[in-house]
Amino acid sequence: MNVLVVNCGSSSLKFQLINYDNRDVLAKGLCERIGIDGRLVYEPKNGEKEVTEAAMPTHVEAIQMVLDALVNEKSGVIKSLEEVDAIGHRVLHGGMKITNSVIIDDEVIKVIEECADLGPLHNPANLMGINACMKLMPGVPNVAVFDTAFHQTMPPKAYMYGIPKEYYEKYAIRKYGFHGTSHKFVSKRTAEFLGKDYNDLKIIVCHMGNGASLSAVKNGKCVDTSMGLTPLEGVIMGTRSGDIDPAFVEYLCNKENLTVSEVLNILNKKSGMLGMTGISSDYRDVSAAAEAGNQDAINCLEAYAYRIIKYIGSYIAAMGGVDVITFTAGLGENAIPLRETICKAFEFMGLEFDSEANNCRGVEKIITKEGSKITACVIPTNEEIAICEETVELVKGK
Amino acid sequence: MNVLVVNCGSSSLKFQLINYDNRDVLAKGLCERIGIDGRLVYEPKNGEKEVTEAAMPTHVEAIQMVLDALVNEKSGVIKSLEEVDAIGHRVLHGGMKITNSVIIDDEVIKVIEECADLGPLHNPANLMGINACMKLMPGVPNVAVFDTAFHQTMPPKAYMYGIPKEYYEKYAIRKYGFHGTSHKFVSKRTAEFLGKDYNDLKIIVCHMGNGASLSAVKNGKCVDTSMGLTPLEGVIMGTRSGDIDPAFVEYLCNKENLTVSEVLNILNKKSGMLGMTGISSDYRDVSAAAEAGNQDAINCLEAYAYRIIKYIGSYIAAMGGVDVITFTAGLGENAIPLRETICKAFEFMGLEFDSEANNCRGVEKIITKEGSKITACVIPTNEEIAICEETVELVKGK
Repeated sequence: MNVLVVNCGSSSLKFQLINYDNRDVLAKGLCERIGIDGRLVYEPKNGEKEVTEAAMPTHVEAIQMVLDALVNEKSGVIKSLEEVDAIGHRVLHGGMKITNSVIIDDEVIKVIEECADLGPLHNPANLMGINACMKLMPGVPNVAVFDTAFHQTMPPKAYMYGIPKEYYEKYAIRKYGFHGTSHKFVSKRTAEFLGKDYNDLKIIVCHMGNGASLSAVKNGKCVDTSMGLTPLEGVIMGTRSGDIDPAFVEYLCNKENLTVSEVLNILNKKSGMLGMTGISSDYRDVSAAAEAGNQDAINCLEAYAYRIIKYIGSYIAAMGGVDVITFTAGLGENAIPLRETICKAFEFMGLEFDSEANNCRGVEKIITKEGSKITACVIPTNEEIAICEETVELVKGK
Repeated sequence: MNVLVVNCGSSSLKFQLINYDNRDVLAKGLCERIGIDGRLVYEPKNGEKEVTEAAMPTHVEAIQMVLDALVNEKSGVIKSLEEVDAIGHRVLHGGMKITNSVIIDDEVIKVIEECADLGPLHNPANLMGINACMKLMPGVPNVAVFDTAFHQTMPPKAYMYGIPKEYYEKYAIRKYGFHGTSHKFVSKRTAEFLGKDYNDLKIIVCHMGNGASLSAVKNGKCVDTSMGLTPLEGVIMGTRSGDIDPAFVEYLCNKENLTVSEVLNILNKKSGMLGMTGISSDYRDVSAAAEAGNQDAINCLEAYAYRIIKYIGSYIAAMGGVDVITFTAGLGENAIPLRETICKAFEFMGLEFDSEANNCRGVEKIITKEGSKITACVIPTNEEIAICEETVELVKGK
């Protein structure tokens, strides 16, 4: 069973064609500059990467180019489009109504439209991809996998903000959380990997990439997560500030004579590691600078780890304990010293860190000693495989 | 030795005359509506409360009325102003330069002026009180006790925000923390009360009043606190939201067509318990509503406690453990079920809650069982006594 996994931005489209039966990625690539000029990057399994410049006025032409490439006689990986059994779409925001992945129908499209307010950059783009696929591959089931869905099990005490209730009622302003597909995939995989019952574990997942979020998963359900109404809340990220006194927004508006949207743009795109160091949003660059003695970089890395340590502590308190701390995504899978700093902060609770085991990148691995009261491990995330699996589960169950 | 403790707002002035030797409050009261019309409420020890309406165009006339009342033949408590040995002023913001209480001189006045930007409502009012006292009682030493000073020992990883470093350099934007006088007084008193060495304890102080903040005090030094650049950050309060996705500010500006300062006004004055319930900013009213089954009130109380539990968890992680959790201020001293909810959340760490001992209000008391791994206790705060003590310490050492 083959699943085409699609992740649409406003002018881009990433895809992978995955054989569900063996989780084989048959082909992957992306369309860039949709609506501007257009370029397809296509990479078949065991083949050369191809770059094709071609007009893509809309997502329809982009999807058409992808489909043509997949069945192309020379570099295609399937003989006909009939070999695409389902399409799985990454969708940012499902609001409060959608708590799981769903087969797309008119109702679902309406919800994605309604939530455009909450995900103004992503939801409309996600819809363009869905509509293009429906047009070009009629009869093939489309599944929407929402970034917010996994977090919808949070109790009110975790998702309610301390604001006038009318704003929750009128505008659905609350904590939603993001990276849900990754948090679900990684927390489940953590239990499998450790041979434990997912529904009987307290897991804290640290998804640390350019965007970063933590989640507290108790007995198979998300009970809290660090991102909020938008992906800005939470820990320090590549270019996002994470948590900050909300009065900062007014303060900076006045000081620099900026509009509120200019300040929010700074908090989203020019803050975090990039802003704190003036060097880079990339952990590797900041690490190199810190090693060379740059004080801003040293402060930034300390603050970065410290915020994560505090979030982990808060989730341990929220769950009344923790069994496993799992690291995933770019930094989680590769930043060896960062994992060490974080893990060592919990030695007082009986976490026995194994620095030798921690000397690994991008593999599933336990990085605490046998008998450690708290287990820490690395579990690589794979959102495409996660979307493929969610899609098949729904299509098969239909 | 008698100390006049003064706390000035822009149109108000609270005072207490305290005999340091026995901590006796000789008289207390407040001036209201300064610059509008003017009213003095004066209450001598063992005497009746008196209310006098009188013109108070500025803080000078207000202080003059207070001094007249203190030496008044009928209801005064001292014979002459020579019996006032020192004046202790509560000052909101000392910025980064002031890390302790100080005897006020031209340098200190300059710093309070410079920090007016960070405390625009309070610092100018505090200065008016200082200037009035200097004018009316020349030769009597004035001491400034800053709300921010105790928190200045925080390390950069705790006080740096994830924002472009130029804003820290140009505008000193960072976490400061408030209620410092209370956190210092209560944490010190906690150690004394328990007969432990203040410099060898990990204490978390939960100052929960209408405003609320937590601090982590490790070996006698504050290492983190929940309020930030302003008192808006942190836990849910009477009318303040506490932590929220900063993107909320832009979101609400757009939704309700409000200015950024209108949104900040909502977050400061119409949010928190008041906003979440639509009932009251007072915990007692919200509690009563919750007991009567009001769902908003129930949600609010759960969220209120949950945020505090998460902060405590984060500070336990930050300090690598905790010896004592101390409750203080209005709710901390009186909200019995709230203390229970919070304490019980840490039973998994070996906190053994003593519900019988917890059945107390406004007294110094241990509320955990003997042998509990973590001690929880109630320590009433007293900012006036704290200011009096800080003042005497400085004046005597002079």
